[in-house]
Amino acid sequence: MSTTPLKIVTLLGSLRKASYNGIVADTLPELAPAGVIIEALPSIRDIPLYDADLQQESGFPTRIEEIAQKIREADGVIIVTPEYNYSVPGGLKNAIDWISRLPEQPLAGKPVAIQTCSMGPVGGARCQYHLRQILVFLDAYVMNKPEFMGGVIQSKVDEQRGKLTDVATIEFLGKQLSVFADYIRRVG
Amino acid sequence: MSTTPLKIVTLLGSLRKASYNGIVADTLPELAPAGVIIEALPSIRDIPLYDADLQQESGFPTRIEEIAQKIREADGVIIVTPEYNYSVPGGLKNAIDWISRLPEQPLAGKPVAIQTCSMGPVGGARCQYHLRQILVFLDAYVMNKPEFMGGVIQSKVDEQRGKLTDVATIEFLGKQLSVFADYIRRVG
Amino acid sequence: MSTTPLKIVTLLGSLRKASYNGIVADTLPELAPAGVIIEALPSIRDIPLYDADLQQESGFPTRIEEIAQKIREADGVIIVTPEYNYSVPGGLKNAIDWISRLPEQPLAGKPVAIQTCSMGPVGGARCQYHLRQILVFLDAYVMNKPEFMGGVIQSKVDEQRGKLTDVATIEFLGKQLSVFADYIRRVG
Amino acid sequence: MSTTPLKIVTLLGSLRKASYNGIVADTLPELAPAGVIIEALPSIRDIPLYDADLQQESGFPTRIEEIAQKIREADGVIIVTPEYNYSVPGGLKNAIDWISRLPEQPLAGKPVAIQTCSMGPVGGARCQYHLRQILVFLDAYVMNKPEFMGGVIQSKVDEQRGKLTDVATIEFLGKQLSVFADYIRRVG
Repeated sequence: MSTTPLKIVTLLGSLRKASYNGIVADTLPELAPAGVIIEALPSIRDIPLYDADLQQESGFPTRIEEIAQKIREADGVIIVTPEYNYSVPGGLKNAIDWISRLPEQPLAGKPVAIQTCSMGPVGGARCQYHLRQILVFLDAYVMNKPEFMGGVIQSKVDEQRGKLTDVATIEFLGKQLSVFADYIRRVG
Repeated sequence: MSTTPLKIVTLLGSLRKASYNGIVADTLPELAPAGVIIEALPSIRDIPLYDADLQQESGFPTRIEEIAQKIREADGVIIVTPEYNYSVPGGLKNAIDWISRLPEQPLAGKPVAIQTCSMGPVGGARCQYHLRQILVFLDAYVMNKPEFMGGVIQSKVDEQRGKLTDVATIEFLGKQLSVFADYIRRVG
Repeated sequence: MSTTPLKIVTLLGSLRKASYNGIVADTLPELAPAGVIIEALPSIRDIPLYDADLQQESGFPTRIEEIAQKIREADGVIIVTPEYNYSVPGGLKNAIDWISRLPEQPLAGKPVAIQTCSMGPVGGARCQYHLRQILVFLDAYVMNKPEFMGGVIQSKVDEQRGKLTDVATIEFLGKQLSVFADYIRRVG
Repeated sequence: MSTTPLKIVTLLGSLRKASYNGIVADTLPELAPAGVIIEALPSIRDIPLYDADLQQESGFPTRIEEIAQKIREADGVIIVTPEYNYSVPGGLKNAIDWISRLPEQPLAGKPVAIQTCSMGPVGGARCQYHLRQILVFLDAYVMNKPEFMGGVIQSKVDEQRGKLTDVATIEFLGKQLSVFADYIRRVG
């Protein structure tokens, strides 16, 4: 098994400044196992709605090119996102729609893990299986387990510091990151 | 069974000007059965990505308010959309995400039919079942059958006139509209 | 709105004698709103695996004919089932596969509600959306909301009596039955 | 990259003797690339419906133990199945439900490919994505592409010999097997 340091990037599905998913994503770098660096991708904010005419006239949005290049350079991607209306947020899907049209597919063969925090007991499960179907088309290698479906996360964070504080959640995420690093080394 | 005229509105999931789904949607009014009027909803173009902060600061986009009001006034909605990456286009999902936050839910209890045209033999099936799951949350009443999954539609249209010309497709859609009108009168 | 008494039948997806889903199904009759009778369908136990050769040689299993006839005579069906492996139990799906081949489709146009109790926080959500897709093909009218996804139900029952005892769960199910009765009167 | 010979086993989802999916599965061994052996697993016929009481009283069916052991000894599994009612056949799901309860999980970390032949243009797509969700729970490593969704296969076989004859289908399957062998060597 290789001991080369791994680079993992996080793609955030929410635009809200105080997003609980954003807090989870912001906490990940300090939970990374030894030999793993975790960095946030640029925000999906301000990306125009996908339109093949726009693509033909103006090419790809700069933000999409940036996100794609950082994904290509990374060893793995963690998608951290809320569930909207029993599925993937439109803004996140829109970013994926743009990325999917790029000539050199950044997600093809790329190891991916999914984390969702969502209101209600189901905690984003419905979003995760839609994302998995989308990522079949993009030929990403999505890790099966452990699945992180955070429920009501409000009481588990320090909103002032913008960091997770709940010990059980932190331990679970630390374990998921460790398994994901092994998964990357196996299939990446 | 009521004989009151029915009003059906179409929601288009593509932004491309020469969209095949757009051509299908544009052909529907002339295929409407007696006593049914079909009109296009305003485009989902130019709607910003959903962001709860933006909603709090600026309220709902005017375009979303317009679409929602026309849905409320209609007896049924037909969603006509391509499949992007084995799911719903991000732009269409984004419009639905905005609509879902409105105080008076326009899609709750509203009869809905789905039409997809997509490259490849599967013709948008994967998009349709994702849409159906999304519409469970919104409590829309989605008609089961007949399902319209148009495959490669390129040879079935007159691109100059922007209209469908394939007789079998036209007949199928005419039948679906007729069944949808009956469905609206039953469950609407 | 009609005040005719409604008859609802329950289809149980588990074969285990002490099944928690069975306890939920057994509790439903006493939670029925005024004017609604709820009865259990015959068990799906002992139904052979679907095989088109067997169907051609021996016709339909008697148990399937019985279940189908009772569904035809009912105003609505409640499917009460565990989730197995993120989907519908094979035994329940097998019963549905047999039913789907019957000449006069018992589930076509029939109002259906779904209840799942399952280990883990997600409580059967994954099973419910698979069931919904299956029931699109059968043209059943599946109620959207409220969805009952019971989580760990062990502490909410009296196993000796085989009845639910948890007040919040009982109230939720009573409300779901009441909404389902209205739904049947609307779309049935 | 290893050049060790690979052993792949096929799991058939149909019980019908003249099953088109059975014909596809029977044709696979002669399409295997160099260094790959393909063998059929025992039939899922005669496996009782999963019942936790039965498991506790009598243990696992012998057929399930046989199938599981052969899966453990194989390098990869191809599931070849029809679509029943927009999902996985009950009989196949039932076999998976039994397998999932075994102490040493045969499908965990096992590379899997899916092939479906089904009536209608969609060719089993709906079954494939349900299977994929099921296999997330079992932690199987399901190959993304190429996906084989055979449509109306009747004209593509020699029913007397029980073999595929359609050249394009044979070429496609040969390519899929070759990609699957590479996938096994990468992730297995």
